[in-house]
Amino acid sequence: MATQADGRAPASPPALYGPVADDLPLVEAKLAALADVEVPWLREMLSAVLSGEGKRMRPAVALLAGRLGRYDTELLVPLAASVELLHTATLVHDDVIDAAPERRGRPTAAALFQNTSSVMLGDYMFAHAADFVAETGNIRAIRAFAKTLRVMANGELEQDVSAFEYSEDVQRYFERIAGKTASLFATAAEGGAIVTGAPESAIEAMRRYGQQLGMAFQVVDDVLDFTGEAEEMGKPVASDLRAGTLTLPALLYLHREPENNPVRRAFEGVRPRANLDRAIEAIRAGGALDEAMEVARRFGTEALGALDELDERAGDAETREALAGLVAQVLDRRS
Amino acid sequence: MATQADGRAPASPPALYGPVADDLPLVEAKLAALADVEVPWLREMLSAVLSGEGKRMRPAVALLAGRLGRYDTELLVPLAASVELLHTATLVHDDVIDAAPERRGRPTAAALFQNTSSVMLGDYMFAHAADFVAETGNIRAIRAFAKTLRVMANGELEQDVSAFEYSEDVQRYFERIAGKTASLFATAAEGGAIVTGAPESAIEAMRRYGQQLGMAFQVVDDVLDFTGEAEEMGKPVASDLRAGTLTLPALLYLHREPENNPVRRAFEGVRPRANLDRAIEAIRAGGALDEAMEVARRFGTEALGALDELDERAGDAETREALAGLVAQVLDRRS
Repeated sequence: MATQADGRAPASPPALYGPVADDLPLVEAKLAALADVEVPWLREMLSAVLSGEGKRMRPAVALLAGRLGRYDTELLVPLAASVELLHTATLVHDDVIDAAPERRGRPTAAALFQNTSSVMLGDYMFAHAADFVAETGNIRAIRAFAKTLRVMANGELEQDVSAFEYSEDVQRYFERIAGKTASLFATAAEGGAIVTGAPESAIEAMRRYGQQLGMAFQVVDDVLDFTGEAEEMGKPVASDLRAGTLTLPALLYLHREPENNPVRRAFEGVRPRANLDRAIEAIRAGGALDEAMEVARRFGTEALGALDELDERAGDAETREALAGLVAQVLDRRS
Repeated sequence: MATQADGRAPASPPALYGPVADDLPLVEAKLAALADVEVPWLREMLSAVLSGEGKRMRPAVALLAGRLGRYDTELLVPLAASVELLHTATLVHDDVIDAAPERRGRPTAAALFQNTSSVMLGDYMFAHAADFVAETGNIRAIRAFAKTLRVMANGELEQDVSAFEYSEDVQRYFERIAGKTASLFATAAEGGAIVTGAPESAIEAMRRYGQQLGMAFQVVDDVLDFTGEAEEMGKPVASDLRAGTLTLPALLYLHREPENNPVRRAFEGVRPRANLDRAIEAIRAGGALDEAMEVARRFGTEALGALDELDERAGDAETREALAGLVAQVLDRRS
């Protein structure tokens, strides 16, 4: 419980967030205040999941986008906190969802109790996320938020359903990560521009920027699942593949070696463990990861392209630089 | 009570909803459309939980309250559907939460899978509930909704925490059911008045009406948990007490017999099953249930009082009659 659930490094990326770095602590404080509840176990769990060790990339995107309109922390801080809370709530419920097959062999009472608490904890955070976004008083931002929630819920469902199917192609993978990850980045970026009354062209550019940044983020995440060291990532190498989910590296590997592929054999139930180990080794050694990173860079380029479309008068150089810096940060991250 | 006095049969509930009975199918259709998804198991689960067999009391409250302003199904139907969806989503997640202790003895893989699906199903419905309320485009209604979500999440947490503690008093019970049940009735009633631009005094009266109606509803529910036949209720008699939750009848029984009470002994771990059986029999036979019904009627009277405070020009006689009829229906229900 003490260590970060998603194994994020406690580095100091906020320095990268340029002109909004000084306002991120306001978001942090708003999130921390949520953990101020009487119930001890809830306080403990909230503190753990809301601890200020995340990179707060989504809040940073929301705040930066707010600099394209009339920058106002009264509106942007609730929005940014809402986005981060929604993200965290999703992680918490995903833990329940993803943990199920793993625990199928030995479902202990402790595991069950943890699930129960996690459902309540996630609901608690969803509720407060809704409350925070309502604080902005901006009906368009709220609608964007509600739509994202729906898209994310659909994405989450699709992920479960597609487990252990190997007919899934790359296009479906893109749709999946668009719902699961990119939609929230898009809403963070779009929302910041909306609540500060930025011009319509800036709102649209920000939505595209956030969408593409989110796609890049998730592809890199899926590459790191194969390259990262288990300890650094806080989860076993290739955890998705082991749980039956085909992410981009595995899909590209299947494309590269359509015949006699160990992924396919594992999913067909032929010595699954040995074949998965072989597949993971092959993916780590072969060109699928480079190819996947190439895809991530393509999304990054699209994100930068969206920034280029911003009217010259929208935002200042520092803001554009920080938004572009986020793209580089996403593509360069190691954990 | 009121409805019986004017000779109406306690027939199929929608008929009781008077002037809005004809619009309830619109809410039904909006809910049914949600189940139109590709994923077979999700479609099946959604159809099951959204099937039109509920009394749709909350949507009826929202629609009736809408008759105090400019009645408009374009706004009221999404609001009513949102309220019902939120209610159903809560039930689904409660199943996960409540089932845990029961299954602690034999946690099967099937139970775990069921939990997983239920978490996703509930999230899917929460997301669509948020989307529906956003459709009203009314910031005040959205805020009321978000606040209710938060209050409900808090109530839910409290319920778990208070399990197996017998120091809980009636006041805490009221706070608990206010969060768990009454807040959503209040939001349904207030929301209907808000989105149709009813006068401020009507909005406030409706909020109070909904709150008190919800309190009465939950107290009756907790009485029915003791009196209902297991088959009719779809769950074992005294399921809450068996799960370690003290509802009003049990609390009143503890007040009546503070010494040597079998509830107390069961919760202290002294032959819990035998003592719970004894306690349930004593509660069913003694005066605690009558006393609890008296409390429910008091809440019902408060709800009627809120209606009396309505400006004479607010709504028509038929609407007031239907709202009063709901109070009678809540107090008279048998399952």
